[in-house]
Order: sequence, then C-alpha cells, then structure tokens
Amino acid sequence: MGLRLEPIEGLPDIDESHSIGALIGRKLGESEWELTEDDVIVIAQKVVSKAEGATVKLNEVEPTPLAERYAPEVGKSPEMVQAILDHSRRVIKMKPGAIIAETPHGFVCANAGLDTSNVKQDGTALGLPEDPDASAERISSAIESETGTAPAVIVADTWGRPWREGQVNFAIGVHGMEPLVDHRGTTDVHGQELEETMVAAADELAGAAELVMGKTREVPAVLVRGAEIGSGSGSAKTLIRPEDRDYFR
Amino acid sequence: MGLRLEPIEGLPDIDESHSIGALIGRKLGESEWELTEDDVIVIAQKVVSKAEGATVKLNEVEPTPLAERYAPEVGKSPEMVQAILDHSRRVIKMKPGAIIAETPHGFVCANAGLDTSNVKQDGTALGLPEDPDASAERISSAIESETGTAPAVIVADTWGRPWREGQVNFAIGVHGMEPLVDHRGTTDVHGQELEETMVAAADELAGAAELVMGKTREVPAVLVRGAEIGSGSGSAKTLIRPEDRDYFR
Repeated sequence: MGLRLEPIEGLPDIDESHSIGALIGRKLGESEWELTEDDVIVIAQKVVSKAEGATVKLNEVEPTPLAERYAPEVGKSPEMVQAILDHSRRVIKMKPGAIIAETPHGFVCANAGLDTSNVKQDGTALGLPEDPDASAERISSAIESETGTAPAVIVADTWGRPWREGQVNFAIGVHGMEPLVDHRGTTDVHGQELEETMVAAADELAGAAELVMGKTREVPAVLVRGAEIGSGSGSAKTLIRPEDRDYFR
Repeated sequence: MGLRLEPIEGLPDIDESHSIGALIGRKLGESEWELTEDDVIVIAQKVVSKAEGATVKLNEVEPTPLAERYAPEVGKSPEMVQAILDHSRRVIKMKPGAIIAETPHGFVCANAGLDTSNVKQDGTALGLPEDPDASAERISSAIESETGTAPAVIVADTWGRPWREGQVNFAIGVHGMEPLVDHRGTTDVHGQELEETMVAAADELAGAAELVMGKTREVPAVLVRGAEIGSGSGSAKTLIRPEDRDYFR
C-alpha cells in the first residue's frame, strides 16, 4: 500500500560513452530489488543530457544585438543569453537575473532549461534532451535488455515555479506510465463526485525522487515502488497546460 | 538512505468532535512503526478543516452585486462566489470556470481554497484552516501526547498550477521541519557551486504523500520516513514567493 523510494547508487560520472539505462540495469541486477513493470525509475535530466551530448560550446555562439544588450541586465554573458534564445520557442519574461522561456518542447522554465553550472569549468552549458519521452523510452529498453523487465521511466528536471519559493522536480520525459491520473467520474467516500479531477502523478513522482537525490546530490537515479502508474504510456507533453485552459494566465 | 511512505489507515470520518492528532497518534501507537522526530506526518487539509469546523454555510451568505453578476460566468452560485470573495485578500484572475485568488494567508489558488464538493450534499463549503502552521503544531503536540514523540507535520492541499496540467499537493502548514532546503554554498561532485539553491522540500513531501493518499482517496494521513527535514521549524509561509522575486510574473 505504501511507497518506497531507493537511490540507485554507485553510478559513474556520466558522459557520451555511457548508456544510462544499461548502467542502471546492471546496478538493479546486482541489488536486492527484483525489478517489476510497476516500478518507476526517475532519472535526473542532467545525466540524460550528458549521455546524449546535449551540450552547447559557448565560445562557438555568436551573440545577436539583443543578447549583447540584454546580457548585463540578466547577469550572464552575451553568448549565454544567445544560447538561451537559441533554445527557446518563445520568451515569456526577461527580468533582472532570469529569462523565463518556453522551450521547443513547450516547457516553461528559467533559461530555457539550460544549465550553466559547468560554464566556468569548461565553457559549456547543458541543454535539455531533444526528445525527453524518447530518452525515457530508450532508457527503459536498455534496462529491459539488462534485467528482462521494462520499468516506467521519468526524466526529471529541477525548476522554479510561479507564486512559490523553492524549486521542485518536474517530469519532462515519461515512458511506460500515465503522467496524469484521471479521477474524473470517481466518487469519494460519501458518494460525491470528486472535484479534483486530474492529478499530475509524474510530477509528484519526480518531486518525491528529488528528496532522495537531493540528500547527497550524487544520486541521479531513484527506484520508486508502489505508485499507481496506470496501464498506458503517456507523453510528458500531456503535462503542459495550453494557454486557453490556464486559469492563472 | 531511501524514503518510505506509509498510509495511516483506519481513521474515522473526521468532524469537529475529533482531535486528528490524537487519532493519528493512537494509530501509530498500534502500528509497527516506532515513531521518531525525523518522521513527517502529511495530513490532507480537508480533514484538518473539518476538525476545525472551517465550514461556510452558503445559505447564510449574502451575495454582493459583483458576485451576482459574475456567478453565471464562473458556473457557481452567487453565494459561492461571494464566499470565495469573502475568503480572499486579492483576486488574481476571474476566468470562465474559475476564480484564482490570494487567500489571507498569502496562498494563490483556485476559489481561495474553498472546497465545494460538499455543497450539493449539505449546502456547505469547506475553507482552509485559519492558521495552518498552528494546525500542524497542534497535531504534532497531540501525536506527542499519545506516543511521546513529536513528529514534523505538513498540512497539504491539492491545487492546480500555472503552465502545468494536473493538480499536485502543496504544503500549506508546516511544523517541526524546514520547508525549504538550502543548498546555497554547497558544491556538487565536481566542486562547482550548485546553481539550484533552494528546494521546496515540504511541497515535494506533500506531493509524494498525495501519491499514497490518492490511491484509495480514503487515506487522509501518511507517514514519511527518511526525508531530510533540517533542524529548525519553519513556516509554510516561507514557501510563498513575493512578487518582486517572482520571475514568472
């Protein structure tokens, strides 16, 4: 009845030479966990992007006049601002300290999801996977090759949110589960129809896994057992709310 | 190292005659779980509000002209619209089907947090607890009276979100833990300072617990073991982002 989350420990530093799915599959094979198809593996976007080589060499970026002008206000280099614009479909807000942008996938987040924590180290920024659902599917297949079982997979990224302090993990890629649990038409214990109709289970699973990843910051993958994952395989894009249904906008 | 979430089952239908904390404390005392101060109890707002009698009798509400005029557009009764306005500090958006409002606590959510799922049944709407942090503290104390141990407590409500489909649980009351985990100044495995600085752990815990509550819709309380909860006791109000720091607005 409950939920268990276990860190998948001992993974190496991920780069393009690695198959994350194969590495995780091997670790799971060595573990006490008998993997099932009802299990969910949550993986940090950062390692998925690294394995896919989704990096931007900033010294190869040519800033446009907009990037040159806006760079001082946002506190980033013109090349970094340009890289953010190059990874955007739409700019939502440009405010001192941040650019909120919609990515080509349709996700709305700071810096179009570009992670700059490696910029000082080697001059590269890390982008989002091109197709995070496909990344999740590939990882599930690679785990299946190692273990004989294809778990559900969530690729999770850490974002800020409107109205709320602090960042939480969001599901940006999903395979083997329904990202939204539909309670429409079901009734509560009093026979009343439930007003809350759809729960973003994949986002809640991503956030729960962050609590396990966050404790050491060295665990990029977490096994979740006991979640209600549905029988289908939906896309993380179903978690993107169209503007005409967004009451907050 | 991992995280475990267990439903606290067998609680009665909560009303004003009940102390939720005492009921939970007794259930925990009977269980195999040896409660510790590092455990977190997540409780659904609905039962906290019911125990506190935070109900609105809609037939006693006098609609103002604004409520009369807006009611047809939002698909609610004038009395319900008025009750929402009466529980608001500020209206954020009025759109067909929804009123997004800021509550006196500072939370931004649909219908100022008023739950109308009982309206047809008995003509009442359920409001938020007046001071959810104080509710969490009282529940922790009542659990301590029963078990000798005061766990951290989160009061959680289920809300929609800007930009994203589906609802998730948010922490609206907190006691005995730090709602935000501060990673500022810590470094990652490469010695790089982490760009993501603050994690809304209480929101992630609330969301994780929803995955356990949601499976049956009959479990209003969940025990979480293994979370990093810090050494202090912060308020859920620290999770409210002031407008001048909100890059999305």
